[in-house]
Amino acid sequence: MRGLDLESGLIDLTHGAGGRATARLVSELFQRAFANPILAQQNDAALLELPAGRVVMSTDAFVVSPLFFPGGDIGKLAVHGTVNDLAMAGARPLYLTASFILEEGFALRDLARIVESMAAAAREAEVLIVAGDTKVVERGKGDGVFVTTAGVGVVPPGVTPPGGQRARPGDAVLVSGYLGDHGMAILSCRRGLEFESPILSDTAPLGGLVAAMAAAVPDIHVLRDPTRGGLATTLNEIATQSSVGIRIRERDIPVRAAVHAACELLGLDPLYVANEGKLLAICAPEDAPRVLAVMRAHPRGQDAAWIGEVVEDPDHFLELATSFGGNRILEWLSAEQLPRIC
Amino acid sequence: MRGLDLESGLIDLTHGAGGRATARLVSELFQRAFANPILAQQNDAALLELPAGRVVMSTDAFVVSPLFFPGGDIGKLAVHGTVNDLAMAGARPLYLTASFILEEGFALRDLARIVESMAAAAREAEVLIVAGDTKVVERGKGDGVFVTTAGVGVVPPGVTPPGGQRARPGDAVLVSGYLGDHGMAILSCRRGLEFESPILSDTAPLGGLVAAMAAAVPDIHVLRDPTRGGLATTLNEIATQSSVGIRIRERDIPVRAAVHAACELLGLDPLYVANEGKLLAICAPEDAPRVLAVMRAHPRGQDAAWIGEVVEDPDHFLELATSFGGNRILEWLSAEQLPRIC
Repeated sequence: MRGLDLESGLIDLTHGAGGRATARLVSELFQRAFANPILAQQNDAALLELPAGRVVMSTDAFVVSPLFFPGGDIGKLAVHGTVNDLAMAGARPLYLTASFILEEGFALRDLARIVESMAAAAREAEVLIVAGDTKVVERGKGDGVFVTTAGVGVVPPGVTPPGGQRARPGDAVLVSGYLGDHGMAILSCRRGLEFESPILSDTAPLGGLVAAMAAAVPDIHVLRDPTRGGLATTLNEIATQSSVGIRIRERDIPVRAAVHAACELLGLDPLYVANEGKLLAICAPEDAPRVLAVMRAHPRGQDAAWIGEVVEDPDHFLELATSFGGNRILEWLSAEQLPRIC
Repeated sequence: MRGLDLESGLIDLTHGAGGRATARLVSELFQRAFANPILAQQNDAALLELPAGRVVMSTDAFVVSPLFFPGGDIGKLAVHGTVNDLAMAGARPLYLTASFILEEGFALRDLARIVESMAAAAREAEVLIVAGDTKVVERGKGDGVFVTTAGVGVVPPGVTPPGGQRARPGDAVLVSGYLGDHGMAILSCRRGLEFESPILSDTAPLGGLVAAMAAAVPDIHVLRDPTRGGLATTLNEIATQSSVGIRIRERDIPVRAAVHAACELLGLDPLYVANEGKLLAICAPEDAPRVLAVMRAHPRGQDAAWIGEVVEDPDHFLELATSFGGNRILEWLSAEQLPRIC
């Protein structure tokens, strides 16, 4: 039995047929990269070991284009995306599954690079990839590779699970750092824009940051990562879920100069651009200084900022106090800001 | 805000952008069809309630073509596939996630039909769909819809989890019914073959059958659903995992006449054709009559049969005693029997 040709081999339909070629792909690529005792069970489902606490579950599909971009790739994104969804529920992320939909003709070398990147991201996030699946579609029926991850985590005892419906008038709104990096990294890359210092995706796992925050303040009301749709859409969702209004201050919202410049060039608003390694936290105002201090002391939250407040508002509006002294309503993202951003 | 046009609307890129159109698709289609209190939390991750027992997790991606086929559709398959993977670990399937990768231009009517079918399949299998994700790719970069499900379940206390590495020489090999129906239903449909009685996919949830079997015999050594690659590939996998040989008897293996006929016409071997609602069980010989009786008493196992035995064999071969009195080795599926079967 020949080994996989990771140098110049291409995916063909036999890799998805469930026979020898599939088995070889699984054992020589996936199992080797993701190696752990649970995956090594090689059964249809993985037996997990869960610590005490409430279990949470999440999933995300990834179709980002291009597959490799400044600061990351689809594999990293697929691990971080689901890890972060679990963390936003107040959970410690523990286990992931990974499914691949491959296009016939895709280079095994690129797949291997993505898989290695996922393995490294999983190690950094301290999660195990415990089960997976691979399907192959004919040339022209896919786009290289799509990755779907799902995950489970456990909310530590003593932590009140945050939720989008728990924002209360008077609460403080915090963000963990600069906004818009991921979306503008993808778009700059796609459009071939060059800047003095290139914009890098912020893709990163947030489980450690959330654990530190929850250890300091076990009842943070809302945690959410502002991915597709950006900060403005995410805050609109929360305003609707909690039946409140939210007011934020433009001058306090951290946006890098390069992201600002790229957004102006392309007619985009950084508040609607996707992030993949940032979170927003809503908590009681008396807890906000402590949460902010913990965030700033953590490598993933050094540039954290207190950007606004939750208010009573029967219209559930998100209102921005602009740097020019005016106010404007920030609607939900209504058009396609940027396709295949994640 | 206009509602979704489920009659004549088409998927466009805004449905994947994370703004209003995405929110509308989620609330008017997915949340309405899958309605349950956990999904209604509308957070990034779902808080689950798990009964006592060991937790298992699994995932499968579905790219079947055509999307609708005699006896089922991609939605049904996506629910049954993951439910069955959990059941094969001895678990009661409890919760699923569902991710959709949609192609721009896909008919909302077809998506709604698939989603309704998933909802019905989930109700029948007694699982809740608790989280999901939707992405949209440009026309020509996908193929209508791909669905990825992941699931968790719990192995009831007192049940020894079955595993592919637990087959022992002397064990009995049982199957729960007719083999090859799913694969030949897809292929007949794709090739436009007509038979007197059409071949229907056997796609079905197997959690109930497994629960009945485990209640009668709490230590079944191996459970596996012979999907891609069929019975022959699955038994080869188990022989390798358990370091044993397996001997099966052709005349005892249930295959419908129509499936036999279609396979002969197309030069296929029914033992390599995919099933989506059948399982094979390997258990101690003294337990086999009881397991078989329980299977035959269950609607999903009426045609169950005792088809062979596990033997000592340093080569880990799967050997078939043919109906003509000979013996032949059944290899792993090595070529592409049938692309996009699930």
